[in-house]
Amino acid sequence: MSAPTDLENLIELMARLPGLGPRSARRAVLHLVKKRALVLMPLADAMQQVAETARECLNCGNIGTTDLCAICESEKRANGELCIVEDVADLWAMERAAVFRGRYHVLGGTLSALDAIGPEELRIPKLIDRVATEGIEEVILALNATVDGQTTAHYIADQLEGRVKVTSLAQGVPIGGELDYLDDGTIGAALRARKSV
Amino acid sequence: MSAPTDLENLIELMARLPGLGPRSARRAVLHLVKKRALVLMPLADAMQQVAETARECLNCGNIGTTDLCAICESEKRANGELCIVEDVADLWAMERAAVFRGRYHVLGGTLSALDAIGPEELRIPKLIDRVATEGIEEVILALNATVDGQTTAHYIADQLEGRVKVTSLAQGVPIGGELDYLDDGTIGAALRARKSV
Repeated sequence: MSAPTDLENLIELMARLPGLGPRSARRAVLHLVKKRALVLMPLADAMQQVAETARECLNCGNIGTTDLCAICESEKRANGELCIVEDVADLWAMERAAVFRGRYHVLGGTLSALDAIGPEELRIPKLIDRVATEGIEEVILALNATVDGQTTAHYIADQLEGRVKVTSLAQGVPIGGELDYLDDGTIGAALRARKSV
Repeated sequence: MSAPTDLENLIELMARLPGLGPRSARRAVLHLVKKRALVLMPLADAMQQVAETARECLNCGNIGTTDLCAICESEKRANGELCIVEDVADLWAMERAAVFRGRYHVLGGTLSALDAIGPEELRIPKLIDRVATEGIEEVILALNATVDGQTTAHYIADQLEGRVKVTSLAQGVPIGGELDYLDDGTIGAALRARKSV
């Protein structure tokens, strides 16, 4: 025995979270137990709350507490722009940047022949449906700049050709980036997309 | 808005755990929501369970689910040996090693003039009380090999002098350790404590 069963169980479950292993889970649980009133109880309540209420938005795939997420429900966000992201984490990243005022569509992954993930698995039919019915004027592809992400972007662009304007995020030197530390592909993309000053 | 309020709240609480920051907390919470039935619900239940039942053992300071922890309740562990550790994490480490069959006493920290932590803050009076009443024959100091840990060890050894045999963990080369990577202090301690083969 190294800890009582309840604690062992909690440590084991915590260790399954990304970013935590058995050792850091143990440390986190000890911290929780020591700060019971201040940390453990609020955290347990918050988790119960999320477990009960969190669900996927039926329209865009974002995570919210209602059938339609706050963005899909907000009339202000219906500006004809639809941003396609792979994952809810990407949607949150876009929202943190606070530069996009339209709506989102979360694919839930990328096309992958290897993992047998086709368009049907990815909420792509729903996307085509939304483009037809929601008065979308521009689809902005904000997929990750990986091979799978770009393959998926090309597939979606093909599917939507002629129906709507399709754009994608610019590629180039990131803000604060130093040329010396950038990979050749990024420098090449930035050069090809150079702008007159 | 980057996430609904319930989720934001959960992310903020998770980010307070040692080993997690805002970014990894966000990743962990997304993982939780995606694996609701498999991870989030069991974790929420386990946390609630621990929040309700976990408490400090009144005798030794270990964390358990009853007023007396399993080790203090087990008659088998009353072998006259008492191991002094700083923290519950250290007790767990000793138990994982599965080499000690006696009971423990958790100090809850080390003496520290800087932080105004004296013997009264550390469960040291309770220790002296236990030595007098529990038929302890040997007190084993398993404090960390830090300055504060060793200061505390010396203080306890002074307090118990003449009442009971006091020993401490051996210092030396750790198993698997390479001399080249060890600090001078450890090599010195190992040399001074050398044994005939």
